Amino acid sequence: MLKVPEHQVAGHIASDGKLGPLVDDQGRFFKPLQGDSRGEHEAKFYESFTSNKKVPYHIRRYFPVCHGTQLVEASDGSGKLPHLVLDDVVSVYSNPSVMDVKIGSRTWYLDVSEEYFKKCIKKDRQTTTVSLGFRVSGFKIFDHQESSFWRAEKKLVLGYNADGARLALRKFVSSNSPADSNLTPNCAFASEVYGGSNGILAQLLELKDWFEIQTLYHFNSCSILMIYENESILMKEGDDAPEARAEVKLVDFAHVLDGNGVIDHNFLGGLCSFIKFIKDILQSVDKRDETDTSLLENGR
Amino acid sequence: MLKVPEHQVAGHIASDGKLGPLVDDQGRFFKPLQGDSRGEHEAKFYESFTSNKKVPYHIRRYFPVCHGTQLVEASDGSGKLPHLVLDDVVSVYSNPSVMDVKIGSRTWYLDVSEEYFKKCIKKDRQTTTVSLGFRVSGFKIFDHQESSFWRAEKKLVLGYNADGARLALRKFVSSNSPADSNLTPNCAFASEVYGGSNGILAQLLELKDWFEIQTLYHFNSCSILMIYENESILMKEGDDAPEARAEVKLVDFAHVLDGNGVIDHNFLGGLCSFIKFIKDILQSVDKRDETDTSLLENGR
Repeated sequence: MLKVPEHQVAGHIASDGKLGPLVDDQGRFFKPLQGDSRGEHEAKFYESFTSNKKVPYHIRRYFPVCHGTQLVEASDGSGKLPHLVLDDVVSVYSNPSVMDVKIGSRTWYLDVSEEYFKKCIKKDRQTTTVSLGFRVSGFKIFDHQESSFWRAEKKLVLGYNADGARLALRKFVSSNSPADSNLTPNCAFASEVYGGSNGILAQLLELKDWFEIQTLYHFNSCSILMIYENESILMKEGDDAPEARAEVKLVDFAHVLDGNGVIDHNFLGGLCSFIKFIKDILQSVDKRDETDTSLLENGR
Repeated sequence: MLKVPEHQVAGHIASDGKLGPLVDDQGRFFKPLQGDSRGEHEAKFYESFTSNKKVPYHIRRYFPVCHGTQLVEASDGSGKLPHLVLDDVVSVYSNPSVMDVKIGSRTWYLDVSEEYFKKCIKKDRQTTTVSLGFRVSGFKIFDHQESSFWRAEKKLVLGYNADGARLALRKFVSSNSPADSNLTPNCAFASEVYGGSNGILAQLLELKDWFEIQTLYHFNSCSILMIYENESILMKEGDDAPEARAEVKLVDFAHVLDGNGVIDHNFLGGLCSFIKFIKDILQSVDKRDETDTSLLENGR
């Protein structure tokens, strides 16, 4: 039985009879091949990537595993259509908080039609793609007080400026009510999710090291998914090792091109900018914690 | 007595009665303030940069020292005009080889007029700015066999693709005749100029470290100048320490903007791409030297 994914935060959504990805209960994600050759292109990328011996083993964890293509009943009722079969990267979580961040200071590339170029660059200038080298595409947070998911409004997300993006990245790792926009995000989970030796920052830095030398692919218009479980942090409070299971995954490869011996400076520049935002949040939290501790010590 | 700079390889050239920079024999470079506020903008940048305590000491060596502005007889005969007074970064060399590389995958930025945006992005797509994240703007090499300078033709330089840019970077550090385009550049000076603890690569990596964290300025449309002296390498052949005096300098700040807490991902991405090109050349030279040595050893 296939169903609409519960934790998708950006891209085509399969609902109300529209074409979109589906998931099964075995942890598989079925992505319909888009008609205008983009789907074919993404399938070819996965084929190339899966068999490419030049991709280091430690980098593969950042990509969903692909199990080829399969004919599957499409979500729009148009009958059986070819779908990419991928591991559903959120299936191992109970209540994952998820953010989709499109990386790069442009989403177009040299070979595209003038029409596509114009469409892309307009959106790149309107969003933070040009200014920050990335844009938040969507996110949802598990609100443990309400025991339900809170979703950022797509319209608001696409209207972010630098401050908006910064606030979203803080909110994403906060425990106070996401629905109340008057609350300052408390960044309660920042250290566990963004920090630490297995956290988001460490993973982004590992990716950055690879992007500084890899000339295999140019990841145009790709996204970084950030996933974590906030419940497990809360349940383990007081425990030595809270398990946020923070994960970074790269997704959306419909516009990947051969690198032809040149690094993907567009992705790398945006990634470095994104890393700086994450570092700044961690630093502000560290500073606050130091102040708290010194207040505590002075109060004794 | 002011005269037209002998070693300028890009930008406005003061010759045939046109407005352009001038130099004196005391190592000063006089850059006329461009009328359309760009000159004012560059003067303001130098003022801000010179007094900015957040710029680390070791980074200042990559910028020309500025001595304010001064009224000077303009090169186009239009009388006295305000000029920026800078250190002439090539004045300490006898016969400097010089290359100007404009860094970044775009030369426009968000505040510019639609007209300027269109002009920039057209050129960015036509040159290697979009594809490589940098473009060679011009270069000259001291041809020690001819005892004269060879200059790359501006038209050819602006028509480079990735291979053309790679070849130019190899040619820039080669000792065989630059005028003969059929010769494969021998990269005779690559190790001394690009490599080593004081070479171009080491300097670029130091700049990169700063660009990963600095959020003070966005260096739109800036260039990296690479300068070295090939004669001094040749004269010292057999010596332990050949002195190429390879230097990296950042120039052209008419479009610098405040960073506003965001890193300059456009410059950084292009810089990383440029660094990869330099690394690739060094690696190919190392490989060749190893092969030469093993051939020699096998021949014994």
